[in-house]
Amino acid sequence: MTEDGYKEQGFGAREIGFGKRPAVLVVDFQRGFTDSASPLGGSPLVEQAVQKSVGLLAAARRLGVPVVQTFVASCGEKDALHWKIPAVTSEFHQGNWTTELDPRIYDRDYDVVVQKIGPSLLFQTPAISYLIKERVDTTIVIGCNTSGCVRATVIDAFSYGFRVMVPHDCCGDVDLRPHEDNLRDVGRRYADVLSLEETLSLLEENAPKQN
Amino acid sequence: MTEDGYKEQGFGAREIGFGKRPAVLVVDFQRGFTDSASPLGGSPLVEQAVQKSVGLLAAARRLGVPVVQTFVASCGEKDALHWKIPAVTSEFHQGNWTTELDPRIYDRDYDVVVQKIGPSLLFQTPAISYLIKERVDTTIVIGCNTSGCVRATVIDAFSYGFRVMVPHDCCGDVDLRPHEDNLRDVGRRYADVLSLEETLSLLEENAPKQN
Amino acid sequence: MTEDGYKEQGFGAREIGFGKRPAVLVVDFQRGFTDSASPLGGSPLVEQAVQKSVGLLAAARRLGVPVVQTFVASCGEKDALHWKIPAVTSEFHQGNWTTELDPRIYDRDYDVVVQKIGPSLLFQTPAISYLIKERVDTTIVIGCNTSGCVRATVIDAFSYGFRVMVPHDCCGDVDLRPHEDNLRDVGRRYADVLSLEETLSLLEENAPKQN
Amino acid sequence: MTEDGYKEQGFGAREIGFGKRPAVLVVDFQRGFTDSASPLGGSPLVEQAVQKSVGLLAAARRLGVPVVQTFVASCGEKDALHWKIPAVTSEFHQGNWTTELDPRIYDRDYDVVVQKIGPSLLFQTPAISYLIKERVDTTIVIGCNTSGCVRATVIDAFSYGFRVMVPHDCCGDVDLRPHEDNLRDVGRRYADVLSLEETLSLLEENAPKQN
Repeated sequence: MTEDGYKEQGFGAREIGFGKRPAVLVVDFQRGFTDSASPLGGSPLVEQAVQKSVGLLAAARRLGVPVVQTFVASCGEKDALHWKIPAVTSEFHQGNWTTELDPRIYDRDYDVVVQKIGPSLLFQTPAISYLIKERVDTTIVIGCNTSGCVRATVIDAFSYGFRVMVPHDCCGDVDLRPHEDNLRDVGRRYADVLSLEETLSLLEENAPKQN
Repeated sequence: MTEDGYKEQGFGAREIGFGKRPAVLVVDFQRGFTDSASPLGGSPLVEQAVQKSVGLLAAARRLGVPVVQTFVASCGEKDALHWKIPAVTSEFHQGNWTTELDPRIYDRDYDVVVQKIGPSLLFQTPAISYLIKERVDTTIVIGCNTSGCVRATVIDAFSYGFRVMVPHDCCGDVDLRPHEDNLRDVGRRYADVLSLEETLSLLEENAPKQN
Repeated sequence: MTEDGYKEQGFGAREIGFGKRPAVLVVDFQRGFTDSASPLGGSPLVEQAVQKSVGLLAAARRLGVPVVQTFVASCGEKDALHWKIPAVTSEFHQGNWTTELDPRIYDRDYDVVVQKIGPSLLFQTPAISYLIKERVDTTIVIGCNTSGCVRATVIDAFSYGFRVMVPHDCCGDVDLRPHEDNLRDVGRRYADVLSLEETLSLLEENAPKQN
Repeated sequence: MTEDGYKEQGFGAREIGFGKRPAVLVVDFQRGFTDSASPLGGSPLVEQAVQKSVGLLAAARRLGVPVVQTFVASCGEKDALHWKIPAVTSEFHQGNWTTELDPRIYDRDYDVVVQKIGPSLLFQTPAISYLIKERVDTTIVIGCNTSGCVRATVIDAFSYGFRVMVPHDCCGDVDLRPHEDNLRDVGRRYADVLSLEETLSLLEENAPKQN
């Protein structure tokens, strides 16, 4: 095995563990990624992740755990970032159908929604203030793509001092290998990578401790 | 090839291209990563990257291109992030030798230095204000590890609206595969991945256009 | 005069001066502040500032100078900040008429619009990325209230490394004294306080130098 | 009284109230402001605030309440902001004596210290991550100058979703009027303005509730 180097240096040598107040951060389950009519939509791994996420989100809402949704959208081409993916720059504009959240995972009466122009849910969005107001210490990051916006959100959540949990079955991508590569990278450094089952157990166990 | 999915969706379908005012962002060439006495030091790919970077940095300084250095350090364990790499939490503290910049790449009279506690050079550091003051539009990101702090810095530089260039030979890592995986991920989305030679040519060509 | 202390310590001892690429940041000219039907609307100083701003914005657009608009809105009470002004928390929600931009100052085809939950146009909004992409070095801050969101935006623009200009006639407030107090505070530290006339001259003079 | 307008519009119509986990943010009690040898030092109101703050900080440390210190310093003129106060740009550089914390208020073994280049303790500093890690929901802001860096820190703490408390006797300034004007402005919008006595009572009462 060629990657023992990380282990020898101590990467991944401890688990982070759940804290006392979790929140779920849902990354880019917008029609531009979940609807096969979109040039960037229709990946089977993303579809699977959406389906798995429905249950996680239902549990979170039942337990009173904050849920933050996000989607990529700019005002137009003028304020879009230098994306190398042309469709994001030319189509993911405010009001375009690609920026609508997938109705399967979005509860308008419960979730807080923030718009973003870049990969991370926490880059220049007001989400951080809501998490602080709710005294969140643990962020559960789900969504798509694992090798893009999920990875970016995990890094920012970690950098803000949160404990970060990634239920891998609730994260989707275009292809399996980058999905796995990125879980490996963040699992060594920034986040505990868990199954949906484990995440549900931890949520049930810890959400009542709120306060 | 299993990853044609990204290509079909248009990932990497265009180059970003150099702008008019470049800066070099040097990530974590600190003794904790470059000195083999450190638990996280001594990776041959990092050593190679340091050696290659010396030339790039000399060119940048000769051409009047801003250089920003950074290193990881917290005040102590209390304000360290939830790193899964124990040495970062327990040793990378202000004043500890692991946080000193490698003298081969650091010019005290020229470079601006910012301290960070997380992976990204641009996460909650004053570097962004220096780049804006200098009207930088293009960031050349080098350093280590490609699959950790370099990746995080690339994401943030992209998110801030910069054109991002990654000279792959000036980036090092513990192992080759994650290095390559991460260049692949960012090269599809956020950054042009170049050789040192190409970067040097672009610097020579574009730096004089400053203003 | 009781405030010579600042002068003796060197506050305000130099002008900042215009740079090469200006942008206009328009703070909270939304119906909640400009329409007298709103509990927070109808201040005569704000009305005056709106009227003066129309001309400044027309000049900016004619000269190709970026214009960023912002308004205060949260998803609902749940993600609102701890405002001591009850109407902001209970009414300034997405979709509520109080969050619509005043049509007199907003050009949908030209301006970039960002939503914010707090006082500053630059606090956790994507505006910074647009300004960087446009290589802006000078921000002209207008809007309301001078003693609230304008002050906060001036501080952030300054902190990001921009040159900050405040045309006082384009800034409004509930009452004159706090308006003047805050111009005094920022004029000593962070910004050049100018008349609309001076700002227009500087815009005409400097906008063509773009690039 | 000319400022009834704010009251009529509902400014200051409610108190924020203390939360469950306070922290103290100490702004710029560095020798450049507290030592009369500095061009910006020696204001009697600042000296008074330092003396009052000693007691507040002792109580905070005894009760296990996090304390964050900050000071203004850039690497040099090159990365200094466009300050209109020449001494800040030319002298407040890393390593210069003006950037040392006043020993009366600083406990090296307890406090977390962050460097900043601008007015706010929370602008591009790692302090936010420490506050999140500690699940802080209430920030007590003290320091100098009230009309400069304290005001900026209050705005940012508020914008991040914290409850903000300002013990006015622990804040100092060059002159009394701007001190009072700024307490008035923030007390209407963002913060509860309290006496030291009230703050101490609230700390004693609430700190044990931690968790």
